[in-house]
Amino acid sequence: MIPMNTVIKTIEVIGTFAFALSGIIEARKKGMDIVGVYAVAMITAFGGGTLRDFILDRHPLFWVEHYWYPVIFLALSLLGGFITKQVTEHGKAMSLVLLLDALGLGLFSATGASLAHAAGLHPFIAVLLGVTTGVFGGVLRDIICNEIPAVFQRTELYATCAFAGAWCYLAVMQATGNDVLAAIVCISVTFVLRMLAIRYKIRLPI
Amino acid sequence: MIPMNTVIKTIEVIGTFAFALSGIIEARKKGMDIVGVYAVAMITAFGGGTLRDFILDRHPLFWVEHYWYPVIFLALSLLGGFITKQVTEHGKAMSLVLLLDALGLGLFSATGASLAHAAGLHPFIAVLLGVTTGVFGGVLRDIICNEIPAVFQRTELYATCAFAGAWCYLAVMQATGNDVLAAIVCISVTFVLRMLAIRYKIRLPI
Amino acid sequence: MIPMNTVIKTIEVIGTFAFALSGIIEARKKGMDIVGVYAVAMITAFGGGTLRDFILDRHPLFWVEHYWYPVIFLALSLLGGFITKQVTEHGKAMSLVLLLDALGLGLFSATGASLAHAAGLHPFIAVLLGVTTGVFGGVLRDIICNEIPAVFQRTELYATCAFAGAWCYLAVMQATGNDVLAAIVCISVTFVLRMLAIRYKIRLPI
Repeated sequence: MIPMNTVIKTIEVIGTFAFALSGIIEARKKGMDIVGVYAVAMITAFGGGTLRDFILDRHPLFWVEHYWYPVIFLALSLLGGFITKQVTEHGKAMSLVLLLDALGLGLFSATGASLAHAAGLHPFIAVLLGVTTGVFGGVLRDIICNEIPAVFQRTELYATCAFAGAWCYLAVMQATGNDVLAAIVCISVTFVLRMLAIRYKIRLPI
Repeated sequence: MIPMNTVIKTIEVIGTFAFALSGIIEARKKGMDIVGVYAVAMITAFGGGTLRDFILDRHPLFWVEHYWYPVIFLALSLLGGFITKQVTEHGKAMSLVLLLDALGLGLFSATGASLAHAAGLHPFIAVLLGVTTGVFGGVLRDIICNEIPAVFQRTELYATCAFAGAWCYLAVMQATGNDVLAAIVCISVTFVLRMLAIRYKIRLPI
Repeated sequence: MIPMNTVIKTIEVIGTFAFALSGIIEARKKGMDIVGVYAVAMITAFGGGTLRDFILDRHPLFWVEHYWYPVIFLALSLLGGFITKQVTEHGKAMSLVLLLDALGLGLFSATGASLAHAAGLHPFIAVLLGVTTGVFGGVLRDIICNEIPAVFQRTELYATCAFAGAWCYLAVMQATGNDVLAAIVCISVTFVLRMLAIRYKIRLPI
């Protein structure tokens, strides 16, 4: 069995990159310079995990320990103009970003639910922390870009997918005690729901 | 004598509900869906207390331990459309919200001042933490709804009432050592001042 | 040798006042009343240091221990109308604010880099924390005033100056082990770069 820490770390790598990318694209659209692009990339990528760690009183923070993330994101931000051009001009690139973002959403929600569950919190709170970890980076990104957070608006299901995924994490964990399996199920459920929501423009009725 | 913890917990229940309600109404006005309504309700209700706990390094956070709050607020948010309709159509319902909000403001300011005082902080800092606990949820609510926080604008006295109430908490505490009495005085002063400010449209001269 | 704590404390006094002043002026421009002006002054002055302390898990927070800061800032805020009038009517007063702000930026970046370095963090993370400490108060000020943070926009170099200054701090620290000298170099580099950027309207090419 792969140890839990290894799984969670791998999960965080993929999700973090997907989120940084979405931050870079949004910041470029707002006409920010490299400082703004880098800051929004960092905040989008680490905002959810940082809030999670503040709430759970976990120290040191993830990105403080893993200095190569911020270094690589600086390089990515320097390429921000090129990346954004590719994404806005090619429909396929945009689809790839949405796909990576959906993967990141599922991955982050799994880490949030996992750490909250390991800390012995009530299942409902663990699910909320999972969703918060998944969506809070994007919320901060939108606040900085001076917009009402997209995740709170009547758009295709987003937080709802993470909500369902996080409950699946806890259910599988309860049934099997296998955190790797639980994380994979959480990510899969979140990802599939999000893809269906985009494909069929599914929104919440209320 | 009722133990301090019991008093503070009762105080937090009433205030928390009043604030969640104000968050639900604002989010509905902005056309958010249930995810947004729930998030704004949670942030308005727990924003002030969470910042207070981060500043005082208190863990676990209040709402992380009391999972039934977030559960009930989810139910309340599902009824958000109905609640908002009642409030906007009936003048009395709106008055009730303002009244509950004023009560919540006094209650939260008392908890903030109380915990800061118990932590041995300087009276002025304890008062600031009281006011912060009282108003910060509303500040976050307004920032998320993409508006300049109402509490910082030239409207009827709001933070000022909490400021006066928190000083009264410390004065009564100093004079009698009775935290229950101090909390009741703080809440009463804040509430009466706020009601007078609304009734007579009292604003700060500068 | 002056002990490190003394130097850092002196540094924080000057920088904190410069930042509070910029918060007061911005809040007055937005037509806020004394509550808003005071809140924005406090947040601009202490926002960067508070985030730094949350990230490094340092408690109690700086301004919680030094109660006379918030007391003096309240007095300053009461004079906010007068101060803002002087600054907007006299070109020299505006230049003085920009100069003090540049000094504050360098001073805060030095404290952030210094504390992160002392905590044994990787140099790149220490530099990021330096920049964050320097600019985050201003970012919060702009978010509250409902604007996209100026530091992320295509204006004259700001965060970039702090970035260069923080690297100089680490370089001098590495070479000499003298934290007082390192702080002075950091402040000087940040200050001179910022002044040159304003004078010659230097912006980032990307």
